Amino acid sequence: MSLLETTLGAIARPDAAAASAATHRLDSLTKPRGSLGYLETVAERYAAIRHDPSARPGRAAVTLFAADHGIVAEGVSAYPQAVTLEMLRNIAAGGAAISVLTRRFGYDLVVTDVGVAADSGSAPLPRVIYQRIGPGTRNFLHGPAMNLDEARTAVEAGITTLNQLVGNGVTLVGIGEMGIGNSTSAAAILSATTGIKPADIVGRGTGLDDAGLRRKAEVVTAALELHRDSLGDGLSILGAVGGFEIAAMAGVCLAGAACRIPVMVDGYIAAAAAAVADRLSPGIRDHLFFGHRGAEGGHTRVLDLWGVRPLLDLEMCLGEGSGAALAMNLIQSALALYAEMATFASASVSEKTR
Amino acid sequence: MSLLETTLGAIARPDAAAASAATHRLDSLTKPRGSLGYLETVAERYAAIRHDPSARPGRAAVTLFAADHGIVAEGVSAYPQAVTLEMLRNIAAGGAAISVLTRRFGYDLVVTDVGVAADSGSAPLPRVIYQRIGPGTRNFLHGPAMNLDEARTAVEAGITTLNQLVGNGVTLVGIGEMGIGNSTSAAAILSATTGIKPADIVGRGTGLDDAGLRRKAEVVTAALELHRDSLGDGLSILGAVGGFEIAAMAGVCLAGAACRIPVMVDGYIAAAAAAVADRLSPGIRDHLFFGHRGAEGGHTRVLDLWGVRPLLDLEMCLGEGSGAALAMNLIQSALALYAEMATFASASVSEKTR
Repeated sequence: MSLLETTLGAIARPDAAAASAATHRLDSLTKPRGSLGYLETVAERYAAIRHDPSARPGRAAVTLFAADHGIVAEGVSAYPQAVTLEMLRNIAAGGAAISVLTRRFGYDLVVTDVGVAADSGSAPLPRVIYQRIGPGTRNFLHGPAMNLDEARTAVEAGITTLNQLVGNGVTLVGIGEMGIGNSTSAAAILSATTGIKPADIVGRGTGLDDAGLRRKAEVVTAALELHRDSLGDGLSILGAVGGFEIAAMAGVCLAGAACRIPVMVDGYIAAAAAAVADRLSPGIRDHLFFGHRGAEGGHTRVLDLWGVRPLLDLEMCLGEGSGAALAMNLIQSALALYAEMATFASASVSEKTR
Repeated sequence: MSLLETTLGAIARPDAAAASAATHRLDSLTKPRGSLGYLETVAERYAAIRHDPSARPGRAAVTLFAADHGIVAEGVSAYPQAVTLEMLRNIAAGGAAISVLTRRFGYDLVVTDVGVAADSGSAPLPRVIYQRIGPGTRNFLHGPAMNLDEARTAVEAGITTLNQLVGNGVTLVGIGEMGIGNSTSAAAILSATTGIKPADIVGRGTGLDDAGLRRKAEVVTAALELHRDSLGDGLSILGAVGGFEIAAMAGVCLAGAACRIPVMVDGYIAAAAAAVADRLSPGIRDHLFFGHRGAEGGHTRVLDLWGVRPLLDLEMCLGEGSGAALAMNLIQSALALYAEMATFASASVSEKTR
């Protein structure tokens, strides 16, 4: 069996008994019952996903995948394609938003080039891992973005990345990305998987004007029409309109579920990866956290359709895993409360009288 | 002049020029313009309140005030009054939610007894400051909760606390509380200052049942009727239906504005303190941050009426400054991004093409 099939086969449902045990402990802590609100649900879900009622936090990491997109030839981005590599350099040098946040929180930041157009392989960037599938996807308005072998290889790059983190004691992983043009690919995936119309799901990405936004919706509409017979399973969707970094993030989601590691989904682009992962392993969202309600296009509509509750609502739309990193810190705060608060018994605090 | 009058006289408007300078810097950072969403507003507001476009973060502290309430004789709380002192001991011993969070984030935690019923003065708790106004307020269903001298002294206890923190290099302060019965006092203050009916503003506090909730609304309605001629200025409101810890938190808000220190308001009880502070110094909310949209009673309705945007929405209703502490960490993350991200120029990243 391939790495992908092995991973899919290892995914088991979250452990309801661990969640119940967590609820029991939460109710013993010195606070009015339920008063930590959604943070209590977070601790319960973490315990269930980990199959471990201790809900003990380990190391945390953000995995960031960078790649380019042939669809930029259609004028769907406000920034030039060169920015993907320039930002990869900035991330590696510590100057990007995700660099600042992971440094601040003490998280590992694992940056992988899975297909940036400009190959920096001859002068590799420090702290960047190279698992390049190709020099960016092809323009999916005229044909498939990638072939099915490339889609599988990209997903498996994400699986490999997650598996290595597990070996290092990581128990919470965020997914993020960098790739000029990738909000168009994400829009196509989200439209194909949710049925929401392209015009209702595309966003301004890095800052399109109104004309650019209309053009983007037209491009997505035309692409989905072109590929209408190739939008069934997860790999086919990736092949038709995907991106290498989106495929890799989907792989992280799958491997996280297989390894009982909660994965924090960042924003709009990462949501497209979660959508692909759900096609490959229906029910995967039970293993995921969603970091934030973002400002990009139909992001909120997608989250509402899925019935998932993001931790933050700050109108961010930066990508890179920045919203995931902030939300992971809330998860770790919830776990610290769960582990370290005194109980009514241990602190000799009187219980409710009625 | 008294400490209160001196403090009120020192309050100046936030600095709009510092906010503009912050906007300018934010637009130079390596991210699509505005893509940090509300975190950009946070940096701008912090710069304006501090009158300092560098928006440099210093130490952070949570001030927690504990006191008891005579109104508990009316059966408005699900927990016995002894819990105030028991939780004060738990907080001092490091087992409460706020203990865990401040330890995790490296924040100072300043705990002050401003009027717990059981005087632990003969065996003082470690790390607790004693500025006791009295052994709890009186039952405000039958007369004033405190006299005006007591109200002023309690507000000034908060002012003194904030002023000492400023001397220690603190630049961000959260307010929190512990006091069985204080959600009834807070409901009365919030109803009196907003005009929202008691039935729409009372909440379950630490866990009242439906009958208890109805009783609580009746108590607040009757109290506001009794004191209807004493609900004008801030000190009068405190005297009529206030609490010593609510008065002290109002003092922190006022002194923060005077010292150009942003104050993070926790939940429902702290919102009542902000309401009193606004009566004492109209416009004070421009100097405050609001930590979270809580689950208690009409909290959300009050925040919406004020037009303020809380940072978190997690259905918490624990108090102690727990929501403030979590939100302060978001503020500090925003300031880290503001200070540490590379600019387009410094990182040689291409700018927008159109």
